[in-house]
Amino acid sequence: MAGIHRFYRESATLSPFGQVEEAIARYTSAHPSQKLFRMGIGELSQPICPAAVNAMKQAAIELSKAETFRGYQPECGAGFLRRAIASHYQARSIPLSSNEVFVTSGATEGLSGLSDLFAADCRVQIVEPTYPAYALLNRLQGREIFRMACLPDGRLPLPDRSCRADLIFLCSPNNPTGAAADHTTLKAWVDYANEQEAVILFDAAYEAFVTDPTLPRSILEIEGARSCAIEIGSLSKTASFTGVRLGYVLIPHQLKRDGIALADRFREHCAIRTNGVSYIVQRGGEAVFTPDGQAQIRRALDIYRRNASLWKQTLSSLSLPYGGGTHLPFLFFRCPNGMSGWELFDRLLSEKQVVGMPGEVFGPFGKGCFRLSALSSPADTAEAAQRFFEAINKL
Amino acid sequence: MAGIHRFYRESATLSPFGQVEEAIARYTSAHPSQKLFRMGIGELSQPICPAAVNAMKQAAIELSKAETFRGYQPECGAGFLRRAIASHYQARSIPLSSNEVFVTSGATEGLSGLSDLFAADCRVQIVEPTYPAYALLNRLQGREIFRMACLPDGRLPLPDRSCRADLIFLCSPNNPTGAAADHTTLKAWVDYANEQEAVILFDAAYEAFVTDPTLPRSILEIEGARSCAIEIGSLSKTASFTGVRLGYVLIPHQLKRDGIALADRFREHCAIRTNGVSYIVQRGGEAVFTPDGQAQIRRALDIYRRNASLWKQTLSSLSLPYGGGTHLPFLFFRCPNGMSGWELFDRLLSEKQVVGMPGEVFGPFGKGCFRLSALSSPADTAEAAQRFFEAINKL
Repeated sequence: MAGIHRFYRESATLSPFGQVEEAIARYTSAHPSQKLFRMGIGELSQPICPAAVNAMKQAAIELSKAETFRGYQPECGAGFLRRAIASHYQARSIPLSSNEVFVTSGATEGLSGLSDLFAADCRVQIVEPTYPAYALLNRLQGREIFRMACLPDGRLPLPDRSCRADLIFLCSPNNPTGAAADHTTLKAWVDYANEQEAVILFDAAYEAFVTDPTLPRSILEIEGARSCAIEIGSLSKTASFTGVRLGYVLIPHQLKRDGIALADRFREHCAIRTNGVSYIVQRGGEAVFTPDGQAQIRRALDIYRRNASLWKQTLSSLSLPYGGGTHLPFLFFRCPNGMSGWELFDRLLSEKQVVGMPGEVFGPFGKGCFRLSALSSPADTAEAAQRFFEAINKL
Repeated sequence: MAGIHRFYRESATLSPFGQVEEAIARYTSAHPSQKLFRMGIGELSQPICPAAVNAMKQAAIELSKAETFRGYQPECGAGFLRRAIASHYQARSIPLSSNEVFVTSGATEGLSGLSDLFAADCRVQIVEPTYPAYALLNRLQGREIFRMACLPDGRLPLPDRSCRADLIFLCSPNNPTGAAADHTTLKAWVDYANEQEAVILFDAAYEAFVTDPTLPRSILEIEGARSCAIEIGSLSKTASFTGVRLGYVLIPHQLKRDGIALADRFREHCAIRTNGVSYIVQRGGEAVFTPDGQAQIRRALDIYRRNASLWKQTLSSLSLPYGGGTHLPFLFFRCPNGMSGWELFDRLLSEKQVVGMPGEVFGPFGKGCFRLSALSSPADTAEAAQRFFEAINKL
């Protein structure tokens, strides 16, 4: 008999985000006419920038003519986009060759492909609360996971040198806590990884939200990172590409394990599991990295920052200590009165039609916490913040 | 130390298609001004149909306006495209619900995701010569592979009932041999799979090329298939979507193993490994399934059929028995004079600048064979056929 993979045989439950979507679907089917204020999953309100839209229309037209038609794209991404991404890093004084850039259909797709490269007996370290995909992808591979807690204020702690790790997942600015790791902390992790010959998978999906110029936005800014770190980037939140699908992976040439260059193997892996990323989408991505594209996406980021400021005011006026909202378009806080994240989720949804995200979604250390998004429209954010204030204030 | 996955630790060689591309790259760098006639990998000459291009331009415009902007798509595909694909099958009297349709970024992406669902100890049966991804994806999972040879004329043999199989990969019309399996043969495989509780992964990437109305174009036309078979479809060759990236997977509701509905687990798997398929691309795919889109893609298919006729004439005039060219836009034949596929590849490339595909790429049973593509432009095909004739005729 065709037996089912152990992960799917043993895990009867939905993925954490799936559980949230199911709860929303249950509510919506019971109350079909109620408008929901979705401050949960990272859905964006701002449209794609004109530069990207024009480039994608142009790319579609190209494909419609025999003279300019294009077929299969290189498995690791089109040269024009890999060069654009490399230049984007070079402009920030981060040495990066376009051959070290791998284009993916998104950060999740990049992370899952990278996870496939490593052995099942790798010992995985995840600093939580954080994006739940890291734990899921490693459970899928049958790996042992060691969870380390963020500091009480949500910052990345220093590594525990007494503890062995082979694969380390770091996210900075961390989703959901909002803390961006400083140079000193990241340097300690890079040194620790090099000592142990571990590999750091560094999720930089929110790097464009960092405004403090003293904070690193890439692990490749840290000395020693090129021998131990892979960076994962995304255009989802920075350029509203959630539904367009585009991300990238940066693998330094000199990163080897078992004597094998990881960049070479990832290139083959992309060729085995995929047939490259859509040409139309890649042209859209290239346009995002032009000066016009960068100026246009900054306007959307400013809107999200203003939304975040409103949430900060609301949480402060309720005397709820929070993280995020500065380097991350999410806010994260402990639920009042010892409620669980799921209890607050149910209450906000049923009483105020405000959808947030229970902290439990982000791993055991997220228990009793809650995340709100600043990515919605200013009008919906204002209404949601008012409703949230009323719900919490009367507790 | 972060150890490398066994597959990548042990396999130092490139994937078969990668080896072909490397050989082409070596020739091109030595002879940069030579025009190549690419009859190897399935690169297409005909552009995307107007219906798809217009839909993708329209979708890009939608994403550029706040009122019509869309974010994350459902992990298993947008409802509009799943319904369009289900209708396309229903119109051929194949019962299919849109909930049984899963949209992927291509057939390869669908196959690799499906492969993840099964246990490592599944015994895999592959009928070769065939598309090399089947073997690669299973080697990646560490599965034992049993290779069965196609009949001498390239047709699918009947199953060997004395042999146990858990996962069975079938491709019809088979790439590269060109044979489309008949009802009787597929019914025998479906019965065999049901007896053994095996799962058939049926690659129907070339179904649109089948013209004989008595031949099945879908495994779901076969009685009993809904309890043992998954179909994988692609728009790459039928709608020139090689660079656009779109495919689908059909998993019947009642298909269960270990008591688990495979459709449910594949939905979760898509959510873990991906964040859905590009909205723009999905709108393009929807347009392909409209009456206009279907009429437009038929014109391209007719061009490929005329190319295939020219190859058939050429091979016949050289007295080379061949398969394919009728239900498949490729032709497959044994190399003359006992040459290996790689020898013929090198000779055609160096003497005539014609690029074909060595049969060795399609597994051990493809040894000494060769594949030519009919997907190029009529002008290039005519020139390549003339050059091919000259090269073989003087042997």
